Amino acid sequence: MKKVNLAVVGATGMVGRTFLKVLEERNLPIENFYVMASARSAGQTLTFMGKDYVVEELTEHSFDKPIDIALFSAGGSTSEKFAPIAAAHGCIVVDNSAQWRMDPKVPLIVPEVNPEDISWNSGIIANPNCSTIQAMVALKPLDDKFGIKRVVYSTYQAVSGAGVAGWKDLEDGLKGEAPKKFPHPIANNCLPHIDIFLDNGYTKEEMKMIWETRKILHDDDMKVTATTVRVPVFNSHSESINIEFERPFELADVVETLKNAPGVVVADDPANNVYPLAVDAAGKDEVFVGRIRRDESVENGINLWVVADNIRKGAATNAVQIAQLLIDAMQ
Amino acid sequence: MKKVNLAVVGATGMVGRTFLKVLEERNLPIENFYVMASARSAGQTLTFMGKDYVVEELTEHSFDKPIDIALFSAGGSTSEKFAPIAAAHGCIVVDNSAQWRMDPKVPLIVPEVNPEDISWNSGIIANPNCSTIQAMVALKPLDDKFGIKRVVYSTYQAVSGAGVAGWKDLEDGLKGEAPKKFPHPIANNCLPHIDIFLDNGYTKEEMKMIWETRKILHDDDMKVTATTVRVPVFNSHSESINIEFERPFELADVVETLKNAPGVVVADDPANNVYPLAVDAAGKDEVFVGRIRRDESVENGINLWVVADNIRKGAATNAVQIAQLLIDAMQ
Repeated sequence: MKKVNLAVVGATGMVGRTFLKVLEERNLPIENFYVMASARSAGQTLTFMGKDYVVEELTEHSFDKPIDIALFSAGGSTSEKFAPIAAAHGCIVVDNSAQWRMDPKVPLIVPEVNPEDISWNSGIIANPNCSTIQAMVALKPLDDKFGIKRVVYSTYQAVSGAGVAGWKDLEDGLKGEAPKKFPHPIANNCLPHIDIFLDNGYTKEEMKMIWETRKILHDDDMKVTATTVRVPVFNSHSESINIEFERPFELADVVETLKNAPGVVVADDPANNVYPLAVDAAGKDEVFVGRIRRDESVENGINLWVVADNIRKGAATNAVQIAQLLIDAMQ
Repeated sequence: MKKVNLAVVGATGMVGRTFLKVLEERNLPIENFYVMASARSAGQTLTFMGKDYVVEELTEHSFDKPIDIALFSAGGSTSEKFAPIAAAHGCIVVDNSAQWRMDPKVPLIVPEVNPEDISWNSGIIANPNCSTIQAMVALKPLDDKFGIKRVVYSTYQAVSGAGVAGWKDLEDGLKGEAPKKFPHPIANNCLPHIDIFLDNGYTKEEMKMIWETRKILHDDDMKVTATTVRVPVFNSHSESINIEFERPFELADVVETLKNAPGVVVADDPANNVYPLAVDAAGKDEVFVGRIRRDESVENGINLWVVADNIRKGAATNAVQIAQLLIDAMQ
């Protein structure tokens, strides 16, 4: 098997460290391994596969050496500047920021959903928004079978989605201290505000869910709306998803379709208090789907409750799965 | 002004104690005041308007004395047994349990929404479900003006809705202890499970929101669905509400309608990070509405974020407001 040279950019952040963990677990065929970050974090040591690596500062010359794949999770402005430099050197960037996601030249990929889209990349592949990824894993098999007409998302998002600073705000808040990252306390509170507000009154997080759902499911006209909310949970996003299908369905067929879908675990046994939970999903790579029930308020309607680890499947694991697709394609 | 004899049943519980607080604040014209509870809590002393009252045990003879109004918050089975006894003695019961809400002979009242329904009571008036009350205060003025065709509720409900035991589960959970009231940890978690599961896969809490919305808005055919979720917040319920109107609307008109609606406070200035928050609503009697924005995924659609103190407006305050209506009608 051909081995690759792989770099992790933004290696010291919450997603960056999880990149290393997931790469280890999945044992990717790596020849040379590099960890990079901003000047502030350069010089730190990270351990990977039992070996210590010194974090190097990300510069315009970082990609002068031969690197096949770079996993970026260093924020939009870093991606904006350095992903094209890496790509120009023949490296394929898998970027976790929102910077390139809606660029028509950049594929936006969830490996269980649209792996075929890697074929048209020109050096940058975008990793979707965390909330979108888990929804896509659940919705794609249903879209294929019943045709999705409209989706209403309401999210219950963990503080880990806001990185180390978000996590610390909840820790501090539980001790009665004021938040530093969030504009309001997150402990004992729900914040209907993730990412910045746009002119249409939606947050950028909400619009990401709308735009990215359409791009990943290849349906520019899909009807989608979203309300995204931060809740006082450390890790794993939960989502209440209301769906209107194009075609009639049997509920048992929806459950069966989800049970057979890649990356999905159906957790739906209310009689035994079994349904997806943030505490159960944390640390796992699957998307958990439950509370599957017909919505009688609309023709062909259904309600779902979808939970996944936003740092793993919602970010690091999805990016590593994309790297696996790239490596498979190189063989 | 005619003074009334008033009893609080279930006076030692979380809602019961708040009944006393709100009755004090609103200075209702009370002649004789009684506090009642089960044998377990009888004998305790509660202070009301600077005077101590010994909690008497609720028995079949509790209403032999002349009592005009009794506020019940003692659970469904207590209401089932004792509300008819009180009513047979000429007392009007305002009942906070779910026991009588869907009885066609029992009005279900939110004073800002359908005060006229007190006229056809026959001794029992039901106080709606906490999540329903706050939604109704926001939705009624919009229904009047634009006609509500369909509602999709996703709730973010505080542990105080499960009483003292729910509150303690979150306190204990934040210290790492196992839950006693809830079937799973509520700290660091979201539980898509409030009240019992019914045969259709919905929880009773979800069906309460569906049934009670229709009854309060006097529209048996209104299309409503709900996903109700417990979140690790001590007090105040938040709700993501997606609405489809019958008629076209201007967004400014929706905002203006809400600003002029009784019991509503519009908190909607995203540029300054102003939107309804559980921590801000706690201790208040108003329903806070924000994140008001057009939903482009459907004709005449809108998204709202609605927050209120579930123990006050969602229970005690609403019941005391009903008592005020009854007293006004007696003058």
